[in-house]
Amino acid sequence: MPRVAMIGGGSWATAIIKMLSDNITAKEIYWWMRNAEAIAHLQKYKHNPNYLSSVEIRIPETHISNDISEIISNADYVILNVPAAFLKETLKDITPEQLKGKKIISAIKGIVPDENLIIGEFINQKYNVPLEDIVVISGPCHAEEVALEKLSYLTIASVNVDLASTFAGLLNTRYIKTNVSDDIFGTEYAAVLKNIYAVASGICHGVGYGDNFQAVLISNAIREINRFVDIVHPISRDIKESAYLGDLLVTAYSQFSRNRTFGNMIGKGYTVKSAQLEMAMVAEGYYAVNCMHHINKKYKVDMPISRAVYAILYEKHSPHIEMRLLTEQLS
Amino acid sequence: MPRVAMIGGGSWATAIIKMLSDNITAKEIYWWMRNAEAIAHLQKYKHNPNYLSSVEIRIPETHISNDISEIISNADYVILNVPAAFLKETLKDITPEQLKGKKIISAIKGIVPDENLIIGEFINQKYNVPLEDIVVISGPCHAEEVALEKLSYLTIASVNVDLASTFAGLLNTRYIKTNVSDDIFGTEYAAVLKNIYAVASGICHGVGYGDNFQAVLISNAIREINRFVDIVHPISRDIKESAYLGDLLVTAYSQFSRNRTFGNMIGKGYTVKSAQLEMAMVAEGYYAVNCMHHINKKYKVDMPISRAVYAILYEKHSPHIEMRLLTEQLS
Repeated sequence: MPRVAMIGGGSWATAIIKMLSDNITAKEIYWWMRNAEAIAHLQKYKHNPNYLSSVEIRIPETHISNDISEIISNADYVILNVPAAFLKETLKDITPEQLKGKKIISAIKGIVPDENLIIGEFINQKYNVPLEDIVVISGPCHAEEVALEKLSYLTIASVNVDLASTFAGLLNTRYIKTNVSDDIFGTEYAAVLKNIYAVASGICHGVGYGDNFQAVLISNAIREINRFVDIVHPISRDIKESAYLGDLLVTAYSQFSRNRTFGNMIGKGYTVKSAQLEMAMVAEGYYAVNCMHHINKKYKVDMPISRAVYAILYEKHSPHIEMRLLTEQLS
Repeated sequence: MPRVAMIGGGSWATAIIKMLSDNITAKEIYWWMRNAEAIAHLQKYKHNPNYLSSVEIRIPETHISNDISEIISNADYVILNVPAAFLKETLKDITPEQLKGKKIISAIKGIVPDENLIIGEFINQKYNVPLEDIVVISGPCHAEEVALEKLSYLTIASVNVDLASTFAGLLNTRYIKTNVSDDIFGTEYAAVLKNIYAVASGICHGVGYGDNFQAVLISNAIREINRFVDIVHPISRDIKESAYLGDLLVTAYSQFSRNRTFGNMIGKGYTVKSAQLEMAMVAEGYYAVNCMHHINKKYKVDMPISRAVYAILYEKHSPHIEMRLLTEQLS
C-alpha cells in the first residue's frame, strides 16, 4: 500500500490531503506541519483550523505530527508543500540519507531563495535525489475550489513519465482530472512565473488599467513565459496547455489569487511592507520576481513585464510610471 | 483630408467615432444609423442616447443621417459596424458601384448568415471590393472601456499592410495603441470564434463550474481557434498575440461581455428565447456558432467546445450533460 507524506499545513496542502483521501486507491497518508496547536485541533476536530477549514480530514490522529523526520521516515512519497521561502528551514534537519529511495513530489510554486533553484533542481542537487524520482504537481488549481469539489485539472510532470502516471493515479477523483507531462522544468518555471504576472495584473488593476489592457498584458505574459522556458529547457511543448496558459489564467484572473491581491494593493499605493502586513498570506510572486531577476542575468531573456514588477517591488519605482513605460513594450 | 463613414449606431460604433474624433489627424467623419430618434437626439444633445451615452460626439449635425447611400457616397473609408446578422439588410440598397474605389473596414465580429462568409469575404465576393481594399479592426477592446479612455490595443489587419497602417493612423490616440497585421482571415475568424467560447464560458459558470475549470476551458479554446485558423488560412501567425488570445480573454473573462452573460443565463436554465428577451443586446456568439457549425462541415476541424455550444443552443441538449461530456474531451 503506498504511503504518502505531506510536508506543510497550508491551503494547498489541505486540498491535496483531501484529494488523496477521496481518491479510491488504498493508501496511508501522513501529515507534517509546524504548528502544534493546529495539529491538536486537527486531531480533535478533524478540520484544519487555519486553511480550508470546511474540509473534513479523515486520517488517523497518529499520522499527524510536527516531527518531520518521523513523518518522512514513514513514507514512499514525500510531497513538499511549504512556501519556497521556508523550504530550506523546513528541511534543515533532514539528510540526503533520509530521502534515499523516496519519491519527492513538489507542490511548491516558487524558487529557493539564495540558491535560485526551482524545487526539483534543489532536491536533486542538495539531497542527491535522482531526477527520475522527482515529480511536480501543477494547476490550474485554486485550493479553495478543491474544497468546494469544483472540477479541476492537474498536471503531474516528471522526466519519469511512469512515476508521474502512478502518482497521478493517487490523486484522481470525481472532481480532479490529471494530465501527465515529461516537462518538469517548464512546468515548474511556468508555475513560478505566473505568480509574477498575477502580481503585475494586480498592479495594473490597482493603477487603473481596465480589462482591455489586462487581456493584452496576459497575452504578452504567456509569450514571456514561452520565451523563457524555451531558452532554459528547450524541449517540444505547447505553452497553450492547461499547465502553462491555464495556470497563468487562473492566477491572473481569479478572485482567490493572493498574488493579484498583493499587486492590487501595490498599485493602489501601499508599500510592500504594509501590503504584506495587511495580507495574512505570503504572495509567492514577491519572492519569485527577485529570484527570477537573478536567474535571468544568466539567460538574458527579454522579460519586460517581469522586469517592471521587479523595479516596482525591489527598486521602489512608481507603479504608475513603470506600468506606463511597460505599455510601450507590449503589443 | 480623409473622409470616414461609420455604418451602425451601437456601442462599438460609438467607441470608434470617439477614437476617430480624438485622433489628431484631420478628417471628416460621417455617421449612418437606422434609428431616426437617436439621430435627432445626437444632433441636438451631442450624445448617443442608447450606447455609451457619456461620450460627447463632436461631429457636424449634417454628417449624421439615416440615408445610407448619402453617407457612403461622402466617404473614402466605410466602416461596417452593424451586427453580422443585419449586414445584408443594412446594405440591401447599396450596389457594388457605390463601393467602388472605397476602402471597406469591418468592425463586425461575426459571419453573414445564410452566406456563411466572414465579413471580408462577403464584401469581396458580393460587392467586388478587392481584398487589398478591405481592412479588419480587432480587439481586445470593450467599447465601454474606450468611453472611459482606458488604454486599449487594437489590431488592424489587411492583406494590404500599407492600407492597414494608414487606417491605424486614423485611430491612434493617447488611450488607443494599434498593431498592424496581414492576417485578415485569421483575425476575423478568431474574433468570431471567441464569442462562441465566451458563451461556453458563461454556460460553464451558470452550470456551476469554477475558475479552475474556466482556465482549462479557455486554454483549450485558444487551441481550438489555432487548429481552425491554421486549417482555413495556413500562414505563419502567433495565436498568443493580442488579436487572438487577448481578444478571447477579454471576451471570456470580462464583466462587459454580453456573450458570457447570455451563456450564463443558458447555464442557469433559461431557454434561448427567454435569455434573448431578457437581454436588450444581441449575443453574436449565438449566431456565430450556427454559422461555424455549417462552415466546419467543410473543414472538419476538431472543435469540441464549439460543438457543445451548438448542441446546447440549437439542439436543445442539456447544458449540464453537454458540459459534463465536454470535460472528458479537454486536457
